[in-house]
Amino acid sequence: MEYREQLTRYVANFVDELAKSGMTDVVISPGSRSTPLAMTFAEHPSIKEWIVLDERSAAFFGLGLAKQTKRPVALLCSSGTATANYFPAIIEAYHSRVPLVVLTADRPHELRDVGAPQAIDQIKLYGNYVKWFHEMALPEATNTMVGYTRSKAARAIHTARLDNPGPVHLNFPLREPLIPDFSLEAIWGDDTEESYLPVYQSVKTQSEETIDSIITLLQSKKRGVIVCGPQVDENASQAITELAEAWGLPILVDPLSQMRAGKHSKDNLIEGYDAFFRSETLRQELKADFIIRFGAMPVSKAYLFYVQEHQDVKQFIIESHSGYREPVGNKTTFIYSDPVTVCAQFMDSGRDLEFDHNWLGKWQTMNKVAKKRIESVSDDYLTEGSTVRSLFQVIPDESSLYVGNSMAVRDVDTFFLSTSKQINVLANRGANGIDGIISSGIGAAAFGKPVTLVLGDLSFFHDMNGLLAAKHYSINVTILLINNNGGGIFSFLPQATERKHFEALFGTPVDLQFKQAVDMYGGSYHTAESEEELKRVLSNSYQESGLSVVEVFTDREENVKWHRELWSNIETDIRESVIK
Amino acid sequence: MEYREQLTRYVANFVDELAKSGMTDVVISPGSRSTPLAMTFAEHPSIKEWIVLDERSAAFFGLGLAKQTKRPVALLCSSGTATANYFPAIIEAYHSRVPLVVLTADRPHELRDVGAPQAIDQIKLYGNYVKWFHEMALPEATNTMVGYTRSKAARAIHTARLDNPGPVHLNFPLREPLIPDFSLEAIWGDDTEESYLPVYQSVKTQSEETIDSIITLLQSKKRGVIVCGPQVDENASQAITELAEAWGLPILVDPLSQMRAGKHSKDNLIEGYDAFFRSETLRQELKADFIIRFGAMPVSKAYLFYVQEHQDVKQFIIESHSGYREPVGNKTTFIYSDPVTVCAQFMDSGRDLEFDHNWLGKWQTMNKVAKKRIESVSDDYLTEGSTVRSLFQVIPDESSLYVGNSMAVRDVDTFFLSTSKQINVLANRGANGIDGIISSGIGAAAFGKPVTLVLGDLSFFHDMNGLLAAKHYSINVTILLINNNGGGIFSFLPQATERKHFEALFGTPVDLQFKQAVDMYGGSYHTAESEEELKRVLSNSYQESGLSVVEVFTDREENVKWHRELWSNIETDIRESVIK
Repeated sequence: MEYREQLTRYVANFVDELAKSGMTDVVISPGSRSTPLAMTFAEHPSIKEWIVLDERSAAFFGLGLAKQTKRPVALLCSSGTATANYFPAIIEAYHSRVPLVVLTADRPHELRDVGAPQAIDQIKLYGNYVKWFHEMALPEATNTMVGYTRSKAARAIHTARLDNPGPVHLNFPLREPLIPDFSLEAIWGDDTEESYLPVYQSVKTQSEETIDSIITLLQSKKRGVIVCGPQVDENASQAITELAEAWGLPILVDPLSQMRAGKHSKDNLIEGYDAFFRSETLRQELKADFIIRFGAMPVSKAYLFYVQEHQDVKQFIIESHSGYREPVGNKTTFIYSDPVTVCAQFMDSGRDLEFDHNWLGKWQTMNKVAKKRIESVSDDYLTEGSTVRSLFQVIPDESSLYVGNSMAVRDVDTFFLSTSKQINVLANRGANGIDGIISSGIGAAAFGKPVTLVLGDLSFFHDMNGLLAAKHYSINVTILLINNNGGGIFSFLPQATERKHFEALFGTPVDLQFKQAVDMYGGSYHTAESEEELKRVLSNSYQESGLSVVEVFTDREENVKWHRELWSNIETDIRESVIK
Repeated sequence: MEYREQLTRYVANFVDELAKSGMTDVVISPGSRSTPLAMTFAEHPSIKEWIVLDERSAAFFGLGLAKQTKRPVALLCSSGTATANYFPAIIEAYHSRVPLVVLTADRPHELRDVGAPQAIDQIKLYGNYVKWFHEMALPEATNTMVGYTRSKAARAIHTARLDNPGPVHLNFPLREPLIPDFSLEAIWGDDTEESYLPVYQSVKTQSEETIDSIITLLQSKKRGVIVCGPQVDENASQAITELAEAWGLPILVDPLSQMRAGKHSKDNLIEGYDAFFRSETLRQELKADFIIRFGAMPVSKAYLFYVQEHQDVKQFIIESHSGYREPVGNKTTFIYSDPVTVCAQFMDSGRDLEFDHNWLGKWQTMNKVAKKRIESVSDDYLTEGSTVRSLFQVIPDESSLYVGNSMAVRDVDTFFLSTSKQINVLANRGANGIDGIISSGIGAAAFGKPVTLVLGDLSFFHDMNGLLAAKHYSINVTILLINNNGGGIFSFLPQATERKHFEALFGTPVDLQFKQAVDMYGGSYHTAESEEELKRVLSNSYQESGLSVVEVFTDREENVKWHRELWSNIETDIRESVIK
């Protein structure tokens, strides 16, 4: 068999197996060495390819798409520093548990480490940030090697999506000639529908003895809280709600827990905890005997203080897979189980548990008081808070919200009040970077479901290149840009008192007219100065197709004062109406 | 001593020692965890800090600045994915041997691997791409630890700049509070001028016996060529020229060899080899008995073919330090020596060598014929070639040219003819990426010497964020943007024949009006449609301050035809006038 046929069959069987094992989308950044894979992806009947030039944006686009589709997405780039541009998104994917199949083309062995162009050492390039690395063999199409390439493709998909999902990396040495021959017969192998290595995964279930021992332990407790952190399984909302209602416990719900929105009952939901945990007195007042947390640590720093100040509180963390996400360092019992199953087991074994009857009511009253303030605070100009609040009033049902880090996610924490709309909230909370947010949001929007992206000006600046994909593929997305001309979060930190270096090192205004960038990328652009105007332009944006950017200008110093006043008012209200 | 004082003294001694050991510039990307280092750099009297928001751009800015200053430049960022954005520039710095001192702030040990925000594993993050990694101790200011922090700072600088220069990485775990106390006395330690660990480096010199044995070997040879690749020591131009003239050998000079420009004699220089090596007949005709190469492999692919087709030619590679930059895989003798010293030794030991008297003349005649064509080719519109040729006609004396990869460096190879102007040519030829080019060029320009950056539209797009530094610091830089709306180099490759997927996977037009980006960054913008107009707007740009972008629009397909016709004409001319 001549080399070109060997190359064609080897690569085609690999790509076909990715599809058979569940891959539907690949994000390709142009290059020469990756030609065999790129052309084969383009040729494959059931794979959609997205061409994204800047590899950093490409990887975040893939991350957003994988979060939204809940399927592994492949990334493909050429050799050299292209591969290194993937690194930020790979780290984010690793920590936020998003399945990516990273495919890097490489020079063959004889061109490595000899000063050949675009040849860098790509072996284990991403260190411990991938779940699996494999250096692929040079293309060959013997029966053995066709089986080999299929088994590696299947394993890449399964490894990326199973257990804690995450990125995997396959490196492909490729020799010239690089162009496959698609005129060959039967390059996609046999047409069975099944993966080469089908994997049957089981549901993680605790034994009855373990559950009973936990219930026994809870019998002596009076006051408990359920906490739902980011990225908890959406399917668990109903089960967790039922458990909380059966046991009479408040559920503290992070904005990324997928618990604030949806059709399930919201009676026990506490969304306002970040506001009232700002007060040390209230944190003391609300000390629990036990905490049952599902998912990762919530975004709220005030909640972190609450846990930190109560190290003697018995803490259970329920995670679908393994992990040690407990940044406070308290003694903690980890329960690695399917959350729906564990809720059912708890309700069954703990049906006779009796907790403090007044406890839930106290939380509910405080939450109502906080929400009332949050809903009613009004000014004659748009604040960062009222901007986010307005967004939730008009965001479409059955849509997704992608939230930027730093201030955006914190304002969402405060102003995203419970709703029966189905709103899926996504964010890059693995490593909490301000990089790649536009691409992540647009990648999520590429799936076709309506997406709103809310972010600050530094995040917007960092990933402006990400806007090209929206233009190129006419992706419908609404971006709400909150521009306080710099790093607004630093005004909340001790650095804010250091006037000498503050603006240069922390405030860091970019002083750009982002309208010009939006114009360049062919987007529609609007600003708003009042809540009414904002709601109108946002609502209109959902009727438009393509990229739509709505910019709101705020002031960093004013923003700090405004937030502090709100929290202080909430504390006063609660003192007056609840504690007294 | 309270913690804040320990922190202040530990960090201040570190920063002061960087300065004492030769560091003058730091590129800081804003963040919270890096506050102690960032504020201390800002406070230090002899260090200039550059604030660059996008860490990917920041690292390339540092790379360009380090190339231009020939001094180690420090990079500083916060914890999390910020650090990963440095990776492309670090890989480039490693391969192109540029000294960088990478400082990453990190969470302290108790916040690692527990799901704390912005905490990722930064230990050995850059793998084998740094010459040295050290995890710093937590801040302490005992005598021992002040000595420790100074010795690590000095070692970082020396390791980065000595032998093959390259990046080093220090990771700093830092606890809160993060704000140093600059009201303390004597935080910069003692005021001796000397580095804590001064290092005396020696000149690498071969023994007389080794040199004599090489000369003996050359006695049987008749025809030799000297080749100067990228990044050869500029100080060696004179010595290499003298050796070539003494031995009557042609010197094939890469555009990045620093040999094409300057005051040294140019009689033996052959700049046109890339053009006439395009012909296999001419490559055969010009077969040598031996090659002496200084520095890395030249850019020219035609030169690669020349070496590939003559595997029996004795090849010597002279490098200042170690390395195996021989991508062809031919048998090669590596001479690790100071090039000036080895030239002097060769001239002394080889003073009686006699080579073929007609050999040099043949090269010189061919080179003249090729140059005549290159100088005279004219069209009624601007081509990529005539654009670069025009640039060299007006580029200021004593300035630098930063060249983008892909087509730009190849056109510079063809159209950069020898000149007595002092022009320093820089490029990212370590890994040949199209990423980070704007930041690299603007980083070089930050030094204050005039810089022209020439690059294509894909490179321009990839690093538009890099323009912010030019705006922020009012850096004088002229950018010549050659816009063929896509990946022009692919039109020269076999992929060009695959019409079905070509535009989507390889042509990849971005279809952006870059004028809008230049406006956003406050630059002046001009286009040119003829050589005269281009020379006028370029000349004007050198009188302007700040960012100046000159854009030339070309056509990818036309460009291929034009280049092929030029090469074919050169071959015909040479056949007619030289070989016959």
